[in-house]
Amino acid sequence: MSKTATRAGARHTGSFDLNTYLEGRTAAVNAALDKFLPKASTKPATIHEAMRYSLFAGGKRMRPALCLAAAEACDGKESEAMPMACAVECIHTYSLIHDDLPAMDNDDYRRGKLTNHKVYGEGVAVLAGDALLTQAFEIVVRSKGWPRYSHQDIVLELAKASGSLQLIAGQVADLEGEGKKLSANELKYIHERKTSALLCCSVRLGGMSSNCTSAQLQALTDFGYNVGLAFQIIDDILDVTQTSEKLGKTAGKDTAAKKATYPSIVGLDKSRKIAQQLTEKAFDALKIFRGKAQALEALAEFLLKRDR
Amino acid sequence: MSKTATRAGARHTGSFDLNTYLEGRTAAVNAALDKFLPKASTKPATIHEAMRYSLFAGGKRMRPALCLAAAEACDGKESEAMPMACAVECIHTYSLIHDDLPAMDNDDYRRGKLTNHKVYGEGVAVLAGDALLTQAFEIVVRSKGWPRYSHQDIVLELAKASGSLQLIAGQVADLEGEGKKLSANELKYIHERKTSALLCCSVRLGGMSSNCTSAQLQALTDFGYNVGLAFQIIDDILDVTQTSEKLGKTAGKDTAAKKATYPSIVGLDKSRKIAQQLTEKAFDALKIFRGKAQALEALAEFLLKRDR
Repeated sequence: MSKTATRAGARHTGSFDLNTYLEGRTAAVNAALDKFLPKASTKPATIHEAMRYSLFAGGKRMRPALCLAAAEACDGKESEAMPMACAVECIHTYSLIHDDLPAMDNDDYRRGKLTNHKVYGEGVAVLAGDALLTQAFEIVVRSKGWPRYSHQDIVLELAKASGSLQLIAGQVADLEGEGKKLSANELKYIHERKTSALLCCSVRLGGMSSNCTSAQLQALTDFGYNVGLAFQIIDDILDVTQTSEKLGKTAGKDTAAKKATYPSIVGLDKSRKIAQQLTEKAFDALKIFRGKAQALEALAEFLLKRDR
Repeated sequence: MSKTATRAGARHTGSFDLNTYLEGRTAAVNAALDKFLPKASTKPATIHEAMRYSLFAGGKRMRPALCLAAAEACDGKESEAMPMACAVECIHTYSLIHDDLPAMDNDDYRRGKLTNHKVYGEGVAVLAGDALLTQAFEIVVRSKGWPRYSHQDIVLELAKASGSLQLIAGQVADLEGEGKKLSANELKYIHERKTSALLCCSVRLGGMSSNCTSAQLQALTDFGYNVGLAFQIIDDILDVTQTSEKLGKTAGKDTAAKKATYPSIVGLDKSRKIAQQLTEKAFDALKIFRGKAQALEALAEFLLKRDR
């Protein structure tokens, strides 16, 4: 397939009904998460209520959707990818709960609802995050396994993406960067870790659950990396341009916290252009899937064009 | 071997040089942890310094020692058990960092040194705990594996012991029990989860690394459960009877926080007697190892008789 044909495919994602796709995936992911997690009434109820409060607070399930779409691109079954999709969502949710704490971003609202610590107190919020992180690993090792990649491979993938060199490195650098004048490269370092790492992990795990080849895995890595960076730039842009009501969280937070953002460093227009270029690169990476990556393309386009 | 002979063996742990044993194991564990963890200078340095600050703050390395001693009882090699020993120590340390936070036990000192958040701030302390928890899983899956038990088995063991039904359940129940009048059974529920779960996991993992039989694994479970309960009762006793200086952490904390403890519910003398009985039960569980569990016996006796 020529580059032109792939690009045309990418531009044709309008024919792919993403809304229906997302509704279906979200329902399936929610049902699986509900099955994987202890019931809210399980003793001690507080922790299970708190875990479920944030996990079912109306998240867009973008990481699980990317994971399942990656599996689809590799001819995999949704059921085989589902434990990975749920694990990354648990890790994403844990990172949000801890990130919202007063000692970090100090946020009262998330997805239009009170943040975990505002409802359950800081102590339980820290523990609910801890529990969701631990639960992610448990979900993955409770699944029966996959022919090409072992549980060892999958747990390592998840631990690396969430660890002190990736997700947590991004959070720390973000925390330390507050009030400082950062270069575009320093900001990119943060975004790569804070956002790209787990997005990249989501699509890689989807591929791995579907016994992808190493060339496919590399393509998913490139796709996830670029979509992740674009995603965070768009987040920065929305923080400046949208209202809190629309975002369901405090808008203008980055400016208030004196955080460096793409718009503050390179301006709004150039930020939009960079996000567009990164998304194009992500599309390019999908060539290898020869038309089977429609859902991934549609998701990348949606993430670029979203307004919340 | 008769019950009498085993008991005699247990009483003879005086002939076993525990100090030398512990010095050797501590040195080996410290070297392994140093190797498994990113260097303190690895970017972002703050998180790796913070992780290492608490991990190398002079902990007694009791869980790793129990893990290695269990491996020894099952004729295993120390090198095969070492990743497990380091993983449980990372999890133990993460739980202490989070437990010391102002929103939880609000402690300024631990092992005679300032607690993590007093040095690095609360935000980094939360992240350092998160990173150590994640690191524990990474350490285990980076090791090459064992014949009888898979990485899947080992990660599940670790995740269950640290999750919302065990370690975290204990922390939550402990937090919720403050200022309340608890029954002895309610307190036991907390101790089983807050302390026994990870101690039990430590010896089980040691056994599993040494390809233990299911009968040996059951014996280690019984041993770990009883030693864990005794350990926490002794902790409660020391909190009442020792000075902060001797403990290296704030003494009298339980009373100040209006926490239920064994001494407050059943009195000091009965608490000591229960700890003694639990340790006897732990000795009994070791019969199956026919004299190869000298280190485990000596450790159980040491944990019962310690004064800090």
